[in-house]
Amino acid sequence: MTLSNLKMSRRIRRTPFTDKVEWHGVTGFTVVNHTLLPKSFQNTVEEDYWHLRDKVQIWDVGCQRQVQISGPDAKKLVQWITPRDLTRAIPGKCLYVPLITEDAGFINDPVLLKLSESKYWLSIADSDVLLWVRGLALGAKLKVEIIEPDVWPLAIQGPKAVHVMAEVFGSRVRDIKFFNFDWFDFEDSKQLIARSGYSKQGGFEIYLQGSKYGSRLWEKIFEAGIKYDIRPGSPNIIERIEAGLLSYGNEMTIQDNPLECGLDKYCDLSDQIEYIGKKKLHSIAKNGLTKRIRGVRFTGKPMAACSIPWPVMSKATNKTIGKITSGIYSPRLKMNIGLSMIQKDHWDPGTKVLVQTEHGKVINGEICSLPF
Amino acid sequence: MTLSNLKMSRRIRRTPFTDKVEWHGVTGFTVVNHTLLPKSFQNTVEEDYWHLRDKVQIWDVGCQRQVQISGPDAKKLVQWITPRDLTRAIPGKCLYVPLITEDAGFINDPVLLKLSESKYWLSIADSDVLLWVRGLALGAKLKVEIIEPDVWPLAIQGPKAVHVMAEVFGSRVRDIKFFNFDWFDFEDSKQLIARSGYSKQGGFEIYLQGSKYGSRLWEKIFEAGIKYDIRPGSPNIIERIEAGLLSYGNEMTIQDNPLECGLDKYCDLSDQIEYIGKKKLHSIAKNGLTKRIRGVRFTGKPMAACSIPWPVMSKATNKTIGKITSGIYSPRLKMNIGLSMIQKDHWDPGTKVLVQTEHGKVINGEICSLPF
Repeated sequence: MTLSNLKMSRRIRRTPFTDKVEWHGVTGFTVVNHTLLPKSFQNTVEEDYWHLRDKVQIWDVGCQRQVQISGPDAKKLVQWITPRDLTRAIPGKCLYVPLITEDAGFINDPVLLKLSESKYWLSIADSDVLLWVRGLALGAKLKVEIIEPDVWPLAIQGPKAVHVMAEVFGSRVRDIKFFNFDWFDFEDSKQLIARSGYSKQGGFEIYLQGSKYGSRLWEKIFEAGIKYDIRPGSPNIIERIEAGLLSYGNEMTIQDNPLECGLDKYCDLSDQIEYIGKKKLHSIAKNGLTKRIRGVRFTGKPMAACSIPWPVMSKATNKTIGKITSGIYSPRLKMNIGLSMIQKDHWDPGTKVLVQTEHGKVINGEICSLPF
Repeated sequence: MTLSNLKMSRRIRRTPFTDKVEWHGVTGFTVVNHTLLPKSFQNTVEEDYWHLRDKVQIWDVGCQRQVQISGPDAKKLVQWITPRDLTRAIPGKCLYVPLITEDAGFINDPVLLKLSESKYWLSIADSDVLLWVRGLALGAKLKVEIIEPDVWPLAIQGPKAVHVMAEVFGSRVRDIKFFNFDWFDFEDSKQLIARSGYSKQGGFEIYLQGSKYGSRLWEKIFEAGIKYDIRPGSPNIIERIEAGLLSYGNEMTIQDNPLECGLDKYCDLSDQIEYIGKKKLHSIAKNGLTKRIRGVRFTGKPMAACSIPWPVMSKATNKTIGKITSGIYSPRLKMNIGLSMIQKDHWDPGTKVLVQTEHGKVINGEICSLPF
């Protein structure tokens, strides 16, 4: 990954856990939702990858800011902003919900937590969903209150996460099913804990409500985790590419729609519900896609993560047919892999391609399905 | 300034000038509107400060993204989102326009360029204004098209800027008055050039339309600037604090309103126009403010820029009465200075205060008016 110094200011917000990650010797950050996201500590990306697969890590993902929508029209607004059918949504379930424009362009891909019939949290990726939904609500005169609450997700990820969490919150955390949430005591507070996270290694996200608990929550988890070899970490780019986990702003932008991203199962095309972008999404589904997210496997020396999109060319014609938006060497698969947006007529698995890396080399590759 | 590595990815967008700033040896970035903003090159902040006051600098401010609003309802929408009276706005003028919520909270403070009666650009600070205005327009069913066009501001700043610009665009640029704009040829294109910029040293912003011209525009200006000792630069924190130039996300957030920021002259309170937040703003004006932006002068050793807000305490009571949101040592005034939000009853110039710096020291200071 290309590195440069990040200049700090109040505008780049700290989380209740930033002091802790600095104490642990964070070596790199990125910025998500105007907020710091730690990206590396003292180990290499590969060392962190193997550790995440074997042990347990604590991640400051406070940058996953919450947009809280409450009030009499909250339910209506939440259904309006996503093509996912929320008719049977119930409290206790996490729901991945694409948010799209009237042109079906991706605005964000949050996780929706229904707290009650009239109160919801959207745990967002990198764009100001708060402004989008406040604009919609004001324009359409909906009766809702929309705020960014004092809630800061902390992720505990990896196969040993469940043991660490059970020591801190009691064995009832073991009963939370994947993509479900429940409430647990921490000191004098009730905290929402979900079985979720931005890895496929299992784990939890604590939606910490109340910044003041941040340091003590981190300490308590870290202490309980020592015997499981816990480490501070962050979403691991090798692990997430292998798993085909998409990143808003990387794999997809407002130029892409959820069908192109393979998210058909989160898009209701049955005409049972009304939502922004419905007409366009139906039309796209009817007329067919012009590009799709695919995997690319490619040869050559182990690559560092790409910092810019890498053009992908057809081996047959040498014409550009797409781009790798996130790519890196997988030490487990022992090959370079990338997530990519690939044009129609070229997206079939097995299609031979050339990859133009930012390091100047053109390398042989092949389209494949996801996950790797 | 505290430094840490910034991890690059496609999500952190490059501008048409990023290749050039890298070639010039950029040493630090920040992220604004999901886009890189260079913050330092090989010199110290102080060296850059003196150079900006004496010579000319070229700044990649492509992160000042444009929100283009066009169509039959464009004029109506643009007036709706700002308390500034736009009744007499005409093409050719730049207008600083606070954008606020229905609660009068600051959303952004862009410069508005009226291109025609039905086409506008908002040159934005750090928040997704595109989503805010698209949400409003969709909710209220306005007939507008709202996009982020392929437009990337490049700033030429400093007392010698006018000579450099005249060599590249002809002597007609000398006729552009402060905060006005006009159109000029560059190769086969027409480009908008404004007499504006985020410094008080004079200069221009070229709203480059067409990424493809980016490298050649940079080269042409740099070449013409060599005899004037041009350097790559960036908004200079010493210069902007001295001048009292506010930075959205630093001095003010959605928690603050434009009256608290001393922006009364951009807020119509005459009841002649309709806009979002009008009722609340009138009520605030009637009931009086509870906090205001002020300057703080403080003693002690020259301070590096603050990376977090520094609490300001009353010297009389030792109670916290506000915070410095941007602060640094001014080599010209030979004292530490800070922009701050200060509570009522304590904001009178001359009030004695204590400043709690992030370096652990408590230092004597005094409230003052702005600019320094």
